Amino acid sequence: MAKIAILGHGVVGSGVAEVLLKNAESIALKAGEPIEIGHILDIREFPGLLYSHRFTTNFDDIINDDDVSVVVEVIGGLTPSYGYVRASLEAGKSVVTSNKELVAQKGAGLLQLAKDRGVDFLFEASVGGGIPIISPLHQCLAANRLHEITGILNGTTNFILTKMVREGMSFDQALRTAQRLGYAERNPAADIEGHDTCRKICILASLAFGRHVYPQWVRTEGITALTLEDIECARRLDGVIKLLGSAREMDDGQLYITVSPCFIPREHPLANVEDVFNGILVKGDAIGDVVFYGRGAGKLPTASAVVADIINCVRHTHAHSRIYWRDALDGEQVVAEPGRVETAKLIRLACDDKQKASVKASAVFGKVREAFSENGSEYAFLSPKMPESALDEAVRSLVESGAAKKVISSIRAVI
Amino acid sequence: MAKIAILGHGVVGSGVAEVLLKNAESIALKAGEPIEIGHILDIREFPGLLYSHRFTTNFDDIINDDDVSVVVEVIGGLTPSYGYVRASLEAGKSVVTSNKELVAQKGAGLLQLAKDRGVDFLFEASVGGGIPIISPLHQCLAANRLHEITGILNGTTNFILTKMVREGMSFDQALRTAQRLGYAERNPAADIEGHDTCRKICILASLAFGRHVYPQWVRTEGITALTLEDIECARRLDGVIKLLGSAREMDDGQLYITVSPCFIPREHPLANVEDVFNGILVKGDAIGDVVFYGRGAGKLPTASAVVADIINCVRHTHAHSRIYWRDALDGEQVVAEPGRVETAKLIRLACDDKQKASVKASAVFGKVREAFSENGSEYAFLSPKMPESALDEAVRSLVESGAAKKVISSIRAVI
Repeated sequence: MAKIAILGHGVVGSGVAEVLLKNAESIALKAGEPIEIGHILDIREFPGLLYSHRFTTNFDDIINDDDVSVVVEVIGGLTPSYGYVRASLEAGKSVVTSNKELVAQKGAGLLQLAKDRGVDFLFEASVGGGIPIISPLHQCLAANRLHEITGILNGTTNFILTKMVREGMSFDQALRTAQRLGYAERNPAADIEGHDTCRKICILASLAFGRHVYPQWVRTEGITALTLEDIECARRLDGVIKLLGSAREMDDGQLYITVSPCFIPREHPLANVEDVFNGILVKGDAIGDVVFYGRGAGKLPTASAVVADIINCVRHTHAHSRIYWRDALDGEQVVAEPGRVETAKLIRLACDDKQKASVKASAVFGKVREAFSENGSEYAFLSPKMPESALDEAVRSLVESGAAKKVISSIRAVI
Repeated sequence: MAKIAILGHGVVGSGVAEVLLKNAESIALKAGEPIEIGHILDIREFPGLLYSHRFTTNFDDIINDDDVSVVVEVIGGLTPSYGYVRASLEAGKSVVTSNKELVAQKGAGLLQLAKDRGVDFLFEASVGGGIPIISPLHQCLAANRLHEITGILNGTTNFILTKMVREGMSFDQALRTAQRLGYAERNPAADIEGHDTCRKICILASLAFGRHVYPQWVRTEGITALTLEDIECARRLDGVIKLLGSAREMDDGQLYITVSPCFIPREHPLANVEDVFNGILVKGDAIGDVVFYGRGAGKLPTASAVVADIINCVRHTHAHSRIYWRDALDGEQVVAEPGRVETAKLIRLACDDKQKASVKASAVFGKVREAFSENGSEYAFLSPKMPESALDEAVRSLVESGAAKKVISSIRAVI
């Protein structure tokens, strides 16, 4: 009998309890022994549950219970979660969490602490909800040198973009729909401004490339500035715009990490990931392209990932010795300055017909895929790949020289 | 230092050696110790390789070498592979294989033998090439009751179907193109007649539902009878035809397993899996729908899955105690008779205008999605779900009663 404690009985916490109870028999078989919920920490009371008598408001009941071998942190945020998780690991208990902020901000230190204590710190549910990604990524890593990870990592923004593309809703309408359906929170900033995506790509990059990547190092752009015209323009260029988190290792060892809306061609493996689904593309030297796809959030999918980790802890598979990355060294420049890295862009310029001709004649960008707006006041194109600073500068100079009225949009593109 | 032996230096075997040498350093880190290729069994000679002196033509050199802890079987087929694998497990050596025929025909016995000897029998590369699927499936299984697994499991046939859909090639033209590009073998029967797909869905079903499913129990239909008209008809009904392997557990515990061309709507998560790619859809009670996608074959993707398994063996993660299914009991009816299970179908009938009206008037199938051929000689529709025998009988009776000239095609459909 393995005794666990759950910190937080919100959406995920109650889902974990539900899955553990519902599939108790098969879980015991997989874990090698039955799993018992010893304590649940929550400031609220939950009468009428099978396990109502297990609730406590005092973390000491958990940390002082030597029988508890696994602590499940599903409160979210850093306070008080971080303190509880550290204390649990220090007391020799394994920790399973779905808390992406905790892993993205404190992962390296907690992994080191877990390693020192010979216990597990597992976080499959922190990225991609129920999609198995941390473990498979680790498996891919075993035999592959990974080049790149790119993902649609936030279901809320993907839902909003899908509504804009499919139903022509404005960003504001689509956001309100997402809120009404419970996909977006009342304060949607973390989602729509890209911070949630940023935390998740930082976790994946840390795992793939072995060094902690702090979210504050990554310039992050959300989808609030995207318009229906941008989306229509992407359609004319045979693509869609998605909010992508992307990380790749460059030849000099620095990491190129971006979180921003991005044009991708219709045949790109992530182009058809729609609604609240997440998709994660992993590129390795031997494996080629692999995509993982599923619901990136939700009570039961997330709970199912948490429970899989609990089982790994109970089974003593020593995951802690395989899932690990180091903290950044003092003064180490882990993340590359994006301006110096090559990217393509979807550029929309406001121009009259004469200006269009002169932009094309200038041939600054060579032969490009073009699109024109219906009313004729706009010239849009997919630029070739160039260092981003140089590309932005070249676009700016088109406006300064009078060859275009202004830049309407400038959106990174995979071409 | 872990010493391994590789049986067979064909496409996959040479790929395994290549990955082990190329990524030796990171693999040693993951495995906890360096991995040395002690012997390679092949009847041919391979001069000029870094490891040419490791070749042997005598299996005894391997089985009698007590230092060899892992045997990698990448010969394929049952003879002599099965004998080698049994002997290796009996000698207390773990076995890693990419051989789907071996796993589909002999899996239960070999898993039992491995369990008895306390060693691993791993086969990640037998399904989905480099796509991590066996391990993630196992992880999904840990916390979920799986309802269904459906996959595009054969890259060759998917390439042929993609060429038919996208370029209007006939089946024969597309097959010849696949052969020219090295995607299809000179004797393509195992691919185009569905046997390869059948073996793979049997492996996945065995793992998901815990009982060995023998390929000979599954009625298997390939793509050789598919025509461009079938594909065009699917397009008119907003879908595509894919060769699917599918398994689900029914309420009475029997498994409904199909290998056949299948109509799926354009928005189905497998509809956009094209060319030589594989896609596998897993449905679980907590996790919802998850899809794994990537190259289902090829030297390095497959080698990368083999190497990941080798690392698991070397690390002693005791995978053998987690990946397991039992053999079927004497007289046990594991696979359900498909006729009694409900399915929808895409039905194409040859009829004149009067017959069309009478088929529609008969309303045998209620209100259905319809399509008409351009020359007007055909009436096609998506039937509702019915037990397959009853559905086939109803279609037959339309012809017998003269309401239609004949059945042109009858293709299973997901609606």
